[in-house]
Amino acid sequence: MNQRIVLASYPEGWVTESNFRLESAPIPKPGEGEVLVRNRWLSLDPYMRGRMSQQKSYVKGVEPGDVMTGETAGEVVESRHPKFKAGDKVCAPSGWQLYWSGPGDQLTKVDDAKVPLSYFLGCLGMPGRTAYFGLKDIIAPKAGETVLVSAASGAVGSVVGQLAKAWGCRAVGIAGGKAKCDYVVKELGFDACVDYKAGRLLDDLRAACPKGVDGYFENVGGVILDTVLRLMNLKSRITICGLISEYNATEPYGVKMFRSILVNRIKVQGMIVFDWLQRYPEANQALIGMVVAGKIKTRESVVQGLESAPKGFIGLLKGENFGKQLVKLS
Amino acid sequence: MNQRIVLASYPEGWVTESNFRLESAPIPKPGEGEVLVRNRWLSLDPYMRGRMSQQKSYVKGVEPGDVMTGETAGEVVESRHPKFKAGDKVCAPSGWQLYWSGPGDQLTKVDDAKVPLSYFLGCLGMPGRTAYFGLKDIIAPKAGETVLVSAASGAVGSVVGQLAKAWGCRAVGIAGGKAKCDYVVKELGFDACVDYKAGRLLDDLRAACPKGVDGYFENVGGVILDTVLRLMNLKSRITICGLISEYNATEPYGVKMFRSILVNRIKVQGMIVFDWLQRYPEANQALIGMVVAGKIKTRESVVQGLESAPKGFIGLLKGENFGKQLVKLS
Repeated sequence: MNQRIVLASYPEGWVTESNFRLESAPIPKPGEGEVLVRNRWLSLDPYMRGRMSQQKSYVKGVEPGDVMTGETAGEVVESRHPKFKAGDKVCAPSGWQLYWSGPGDQLTKVDDAKVPLSYFLGCLGMPGRTAYFGLKDIIAPKAGETVLVSAASGAVGSVVGQLAKAWGCRAVGIAGGKAKCDYVVKELGFDACVDYKAGRLLDDLRAACPKGVDGYFENVGGVILDTVLRLMNLKSRITICGLISEYNATEPYGVKMFRSILVNRIKVQGMIVFDWLQRYPEANQALIGMVVAGKIKTRESVVQGLESAPKGFIGLLKGENFGKQLVKLS
Repeated sequence: MNQRIVLASYPEGWVTESNFRLESAPIPKPGEGEVLVRNRWLSLDPYMRGRMSQQKSYVKGVEPGDVMTGETAGEVVESRHPKFKAGDKVCAPSGWQLYWSGPGDQLTKVDDAKVPLSYFLGCLGMPGRTAYFGLKDIIAPKAGETVLVSAASGAVGSVVGQLAKAWGCRAVGIAGGKAKCDYVVKELGFDACVDYKAGRLLDDLRAACPKGVDGYFENVGGVILDTVLRLMNLKSRITICGLISEYNATEPYGVKMFRSILVNRIKVQGMIVFDWLQRYPEANQALIGMVVAGKIKTRESVVQGLESAPKGFIGLLKGENFGKQLVKLS
């Protein structure tokens, strides 16, 4: 039997486990051109909170009774598509379930000979590509500039800072708690990391960014964004990749330092990685090279079993994860 | 004797006439390479509010006792610079005074044979160039797109909308009161104009922009910006040129719809026209051609005499002007 997690109800404010329901269903049979995949890893990502809503977002939301949206990595069980055969390792737009069957065109074959399969959901997957294009194309940092990233120990932020270092920048992170900050500096090699929970955000950021901030990669929003806006340099750039502090708020935060955008002639741009679909191979090639060479390190936060996915997801939204949040399915 | 208005004190909140002081002084004598100008027109512009402050802004502020910053149009009285002779019409970075003497390199010679001299402070001056570059380079509108501009009857906004029309867009304005809105549509040829004082801003904007907004040229900020953010289309662009609603506020407005920037992948960019200095000739040529051809119309709001400049400026900040605000100096 297949197992899957569906949306039971839209959350109001914070997500709770009661917003999800675990169901059983027969394992689907692939039709002509389709492939059956046994998922091994499920990726949990902040964007999923936006899907659990009727509010307008990138794409249509998940409706109650639908399987939760999500990417998985796994292996082909049965293929009726010429490009795939049983045993192939793939990434699939499967949703939160053990088995997925669908058009082979929606699958991406991956090679886990040199890296763990799960990396294709993190530093070598959507989060890694998001970091790559949001930094390279929007912030477009020059060597010597200061690049700041929030949620710096997370799946996207950790890659942003390591790319910034590799490209000759001063890389500064923002993370929650001493353990994450230590990891960001000592393991990932950022120049500095500020603990937003320490209660001295503005002063600590000023100390960590003595020449101000030229590029800010935003995953968080709210008061952190407002504080960083006070440090942005003339003609600096901000990538708005996520606003996780907002996702469970019933009232949006009001950004007070908007005037900094005018005075400093800042470019602020919202992004979603799908807009770079045609250039995924460029990012994939750059990232795998750096991962294999040890220039991009990663850390995973794993919960065991599909039934733990809601708990893992809620922890992610609260910042309780430490690194890329995954569900190990078997 | 020269007459000049100096900053008497920094305003707290709203500017009052007591923040200024009228002084007399000898008419300056031009040194080698310098030119003495008799000013005929003084331009009043919202950016001047930012100069009356110790807050960080584009450039150093005016200090108490300093002549207020401002551009003038006038004529050369005496020249010790080879490029200028008595009688030449010029624009000068004079400040609020009747006479200015300074390096000829800081002057711009203008030709008022076909257009009134005062236009070189408005549609053919800094406001016109601001409209041109902010629209062309940041919003970069395609024919058929909807361009929305706030303060639409003002010096910058009126040019933005007329350029948008000339470039094949739907041009929609926001202005305060029925008279301004009627003028924007009937005289300037915008497709629609919404009266923000009518109390139905969101509904009226939806009606005026049935296909949403592709480019928004912001002069105002605050609740107007927050409302417009709800109408922005995917991959739309916002030029932040001014935030006049903020300039006299003691507490900044908190922008609540920031999430729209993420969800709609909006590009938001602050601008100041000085950044396009090298391309001023391009804008000047385009604008004068359109003004002479009657494709850009303009309206002026004139107060008489230097001593009226503070009153005119305060009126401008309150939106009491109707068109480009000028002081006629003689």
